[in-house]
Amino acid sequence: MKLHFSESIQQLKTLATREILKLTQGNDIISFAGGLPAEDFFPEKAIQEAFTKVFEQGKNSLQYGITEGHTPLREEICKRMLLKGIQANLDQIQITTGSQQAIDLISKVFINPGDTILIENPTYLAALQVFQGYGANVVEVSSDDDGMDLNDLTQKINHFQPKFIYVTPTFANPTGRVWSSERKQGILQICKEFETILIEDDPYGEIQFNKAADYSSIYSLHSTNDFNPVLYTSTFSKIVAPALRTGWVIGDQRIIQQITKAKQTADIHSSMIDQQALYFLLKDFDLDQHIISICNEYKLRKEKMTHLLHQYEIPAKCIEPQGGMFLWLTMEDSTINSAELLKRAVQNGVAFVPGTVFYTGEAEKNTMRLNFTYTGVEQMEVGIQRLQHVFSSTSNPQY
Amino acid sequence: MKLHFSESIQQLKTLATREILKLTQGNDIISFAGGLPAEDFFPEKAIQEAFTKVFEQGKNSLQYGITEGHTPLREEICKRMLLKGIQANLDQIQITTGSQQAIDLISKVFINPGDTILIENPTYLAALQVFQGYGANVVEVSSDDDGMDLNDLTQKINHFQPKFIYVTPTFANPTGRVWSSERKQGILQICKEFETILIEDDPYGEIQFNKAADYSSIYSLHSTNDFNPVLYTSTFSKIVAPALRTGWVIGDQRIIQQITKAKQTADIHSSMIDQQALYFLLKDFDLDQHIISICNEYKLRKEKMTHLLHQYEIPAKCIEPQGGMFLWLTMEDSTINSAELLKRAVQNGVAFVPGTVFYTGEAEKNTMRLNFTYTGVEQMEVGIQRLQHVFSSTSNPQY
Repeated sequence: MKLHFSESIQQLKTLATREILKLTQGNDIISFAGGLPAEDFFPEKAIQEAFTKVFEQGKNSLQYGITEGHTPLREEICKRMLLKGIQANLDQIQITTGSQQAIDLISKVFINPGDTILIENPTYLAALQVFQGYGANVVEVSSDDDGMDLNDLTQKINHFQPKFIYVTPTFANPTGRVWSSERKQGILQICKEFETILIEDDPYGEIQFNKAADYSSIYSLHSTNDFNPVLYTSTFSKIVAPALRTGWVIGDQRIIQQITKAKQTADIHSSMIDQQALYFLLKDFDLDQHIISICNEYKLRKEKMTHLLHQYEIPAKCIEPQGGMFLWLTMEDSTINSAELLKRAVQNGVAFVPGTVFYTGEAEKNTMRLNFTYTGVEQMEVGIQRLQHVFSSTSNPQY
Repeated sequence: MKLHFSESIQQLKTLATREILKLTQGNDIISFAGGLPAEDFFPEKAIQEAFTKVFEQGKNSLQYGITEGHTPLREEICKRMLLKGIQANLDQIQITTGSQQAIDLISKVFINPGDTILIENPTYLAALQVFQGYGANVVEVSSDDDGMDLNDLTQKINHFQPKFIYVTPTFANPTGRVWSSERKQGILQICKEFETILIEDDPYGEIQFNKAADYSSIYSLHSTNDFNPVLYTSTFSKIVAPALRTGWVIGDQRIIQQITKAKQTADIHSSMIDQQALYFLLKDFDLDQHIISICNEYKLRKEKMTHLLHQYEIPAKCIEPQGGMFLWLTMEDSTINSAELLKRAVQNGVAFVPGTVFYTGEAEKNTMRLNFTYTGVEQMEVGIQRLQHVFSSTSNPQY
């Protein structure tokens, strides 16, 4: 029987992240590919205690809940956000199944086929795929180490009248980039002036290696009483544990209402047990102290990996990130196609993400993303050694 | 600032179920509106033990998982399904956030704007809303107490070439209807002949009041080696607990692959902690014995409610359902608009769902859905008394 799938699902190519996750399941492969946090540092005792408290509440905790999300959890998140300068009341927050669902629901609420979305290039590939799945015309804005080029942004807003702009201004995936204060202020003003929605995706914002630096969100820079054009989304996946699949989106109440409508038809609500457990965790566990300890460990791992790249003379440049989970490498030989290189790497027992998957349009093919959070330091050295072997044994210029 | 939402979200009207759930939150209102299971019968001890086993597995249980769903859970569901005559291997099942997400992802995979979907009328309103949100042309097929009229179905398949047909053949929501064996066999043959996909939504199939009767799924009637056009979806919400938000969809591998692609961009995967807990629950808990006990209780509540409707002389007809969670009432006075009646009912401290919300196109306005599973028998009597008061005090013909 011939199957007639929708155009939107046909537009979704086979997902590279999916193949990446499969690579990590191989026993002998050291994978720097996935965006996984370190399991050793999951606060599993505290999580288990939180679940125990959920069950102590009685059977009502197992019933259906409201689409917006568990109210006490939303209150706790609002309190946490306020400490980051993000002001939001209960009507301005929707709980989602990870921040991935926030990106999907925002897209559902705004995108008509043919609408333009502006992005950084490179950017989070699963967001690209969501936008393309809704039939969007995804257009890159020129970017440098300080963020988007605001002149190019203004021109493209004028030309395309985009539905929204999608950015990850703090420890971007894949580049690890942090936007300068000037660029953050600038894009906020431009979005207000041109009445354009800005999606600020912030899954890594709390993974900071320099606690003295200023990593204010763009959302928090809005200080007036007029409309805040920023939708801010984040997740507990990196700072608590991914299995809970709990994220949130904060923004103008009129937009959140539409997101809630979309959420209700999508899945009614996210797991209420997990949401209640997270509420108890936020209330009774010192999450900030926990975040400090994982940041300390991740900083060590980041330093170890950059040291190893130097020690094993991997022929690539890398700007050391100030936080997040990834190193972004640009290989010295500009003719290298890292997607081809990956095949040889996997044969040699090591995996990474070729940079090409993070681009729309013209890609810098001699780039790769290495995750430094998941792999312990001993295995990390073995992995980088294997990577060295891939480079040194490759004399064929077509790799 | 003017907001430019997508056409699909604007097509979603304010959701009636949402308002219904809000009604149930009033302290003084006895609500027969929501589709809630009885909290007293949640197996919370077994669920808590299952979660404990998840944490005993170690920190790996808190990591990201695969989009398809926790493999041991999918294996256990396949084993359970086999006992219902539903044959499926691991590549034919996708875990979803409740069966609502299965309906959403199936729609995403198949529907282009303007495609026709055939439905029973009345039918599950949140499915209607999903189809309409994807821009589908939703067309009703004439139905009676045995299921769809197969002649009308054939004509409409010929005329509309629908993307799929959506049915709830066992204890339908809202009617409680069970399709006859002939109609189930008939629709399966028609779907094969016309190469049309059939969505069999089965959230209530295990809530049976007559264990001797045959409630075979349409999926299970496919016994040949050729293509099975049925996508079967169900959930643990009614037989374990809703808060876990875990459902599944079973079907042809090529379709499941596309659903998995859609799921990955939607939310990467559902809560892995809940999925692991459900695996332990299925493995170690006597779920079938538990289902028998809730069926016994729900049967008593159904009998109590039908008795009360008679005792308090509610002027409505009702075909007693053989299972599920709802009574479907047709009021003797065909001029009654139950949506108007609801306003008076809420003033009198009782709530139901007006039948109109379950129809597309022309509605039978003198219908209402009463849930009999959630409310204990004492409160049930108070609620039906209040309903009597609404009827007896209403002399205004415009209610």
